Amino acid sequence: MQELFVDRLIESIESKRAPICVGIDPILESFPEALRPVDPRNVDSCVDALYAFCSGVLHAVADITPVVKFQIAYFERFLWQGVQAYYELVHEAKALGLLVIGDVKRGDIGSTSSAYAAAHLADLDFDELDDAASPDAITINPYLGMDAIEPFLQVCRDEGKGVFVLVRTSNPGSKDVQDVLTQDGRTLSELVADTLNPLATSRQLMGKNGYGNMGAVVGATQAHTMQSLRKRLPASIFLLPGYGTQGATAEMTRAAFDEKGRGAIVSASRSVLYPKSEAGETWQDAVKRAAETMAGDIRGMLKN
Amino acid sequence: MQELFVDRLIESIESKRAPICVGIDPILESFPEALRPVDPRNVDSCVDALYAFCSGVLHAVADITPVVKFQIAYFERFLWQGVQAYYELVHEAKALGLLVIGDVKRGDIGSTSSAYAAAHLADLDFDELDDAASPDAITINPYLGMDAIEPFLQVCRDEGKGVFVLVRTSNPGSKDVQDVLTQDGRTLSELVADTLNPLATSRQLMGKNGYGNMGAVVGATQAHTMQSLRKRLPASIFLLPGYGTQGATAEMTRAAFDEKGRGAIVSASRSVLYPKSEAGETWQDAVKRAAETMAGDIRGMLKN
Repeated sequence: MQELFVDRLIESIESKRAPICVGIDPILESFPEALRPVDPRNVDSCVDALYAFCSGVLHAVADITPVVKFQIAYFERFLWQGVQAYYELVHEAKALGLLVIGDVKRGDIGSTSSAYAAAHLADLDFDELDDAASPDAITINPYLGMDAIEPFLQVCRDEGKGVFVLVRTSNPGSKDVQDVLTQDGRTLSELVADTLNPLATSRQLMGKNGYGNMGAVVGATQAHTMQSLRKRLPASIFLLPGYGTQGATAEMTRAAFDEKGRGAIVSASRSVLYPKSEAGETWQDAVKRAAETMAGDIRGMLKN
Repeated sequence: MQELFVDRLIESIESKRAPICVGIDPILESFPEALRPVDPRNVDSCVDALYAFCSGVLHAVADITPVVKFQIAYFERFLWQGVQAYYELVHEAKALGLLVIGDVKRGDIGSTSSAYAAAHLADLDFDELDDAASPDAITINPYLGMDAIEPFLQVCRDEGKGVFVLVRTSNPGSKDVQDVLTQDGRTLSELVADTLNPLATSRQLMGKNGYGNMGAVVGATQAHTMQSLRKRLPASIFLLPGYGTQGATAEMTRAAFDEKGRGAIVSASRSVLYPKSEAGETWQDAVKRAAETMAGDIRGMLKN
């Protein structure tokens, strides 16, 4: 088994001095003009645009960010051709030295979750797929309960991979279910965190820095509950989406980090992928600058 | 816009006298010996087996069941080639006159759910894909809240399609989250049902028989909460997985049906797909017999 995902993640964050994640959310309408598909009703044309844009982003950010997060919905949007692009771009990202999170939010009854775990998390077990790879970690949905999560954890134990369980998401509607108060006064998110923690701290998932291979998704926008969730999941890396376009600031993520500046990665997608270019800048320069600005912002917050 | 999914569903159930759904869960290891892939490490070989088996099942059950449910995990298992098979077999099922539910359990923040809705629920909007189709309805996950569900409902309003929201799943672990008691004494499933009901009964989603295009997934194994959920979602068709291999009986589904025998479809996968063949029977004969037996069992329960 290769080194645990969590240990590789912490090492890469520290070598790049950037606890950030760039979200790969390819939205054709937002692409730089020159990269938009010639014919948006032709799926091949769309997928060509997808490859060109994502590959350009990966090269632009590879030296700055330790990890990228592929939102698979924007690939599934282009059917099987899009799914092929997903696996091939995951492979390309890994070849550039990036760690990769697949934002797939899967979860189903046990036997079905096993199929999802084999498809999305385990190393691909087919021959002759040299240009395709599965991610180092994926996001998963806890609504179906712990037996739905177990098949993914088994892959973490067997192959050193990682998961980020949705605990508190970044969208406004997350309050509808995740903020519901349970009989003992905890919110549902807090209850989910407490239910996950014995697994998150289990010996088989723990790395060498006090963090383990089971992380949690906690929206950077959810500052009011960050501290409470941090205490309940002390060994989980928090993946914090919502920085930038969704409105979260560096300051709002402070409570997710420990005193060494570890324990969290702040994720941004649209604000890094689709910045306004300055005069004389290529679109890739602009993406690189946006990623550097974000890394500097988080670094600055952690210094104070 | 074509006729609403829910109206077509009720019509087909009554013409076939069978409120059942056959789940298409293609698991290679369970296939009839002659259909297993020659080389299980070769993805093309696996996908060929997938097509042969699923197509054989569709032809065997087309006259018996009104609706089939494709579990996409077992297609994603074979990467993009499996996803192509999914869309093409959905097309084949529709051509055989079957209604199709895609069991995809998607759900994400609003902008991402829009991409999922376009990929999985809306009619495919690319040219030159004559042999592929999207389902008539899909399953969705409510953990992210109502803004995550809205993009799917928009497709229901625009195109007459359907959704089944996970309310209470059939697996043992469903109790971990869905059975949690909230402050007012409702379980989380009950609270989710109550939150969904104003949407489920909204005029734009309602069909002509008192049921609407927003259904609910309620495990047939969850008899203890069936009646309560039925009252809370009076206009939602219940999709009831868990009959057969997972242990639910026809009797356990009774409370999901109204006095006219409407309002629910009982779903079985493994018990119909992988029956023991009797002497002289082909594997397709055995599948057909298993589907007929199941239809007869539910029909018998509703008569008493």
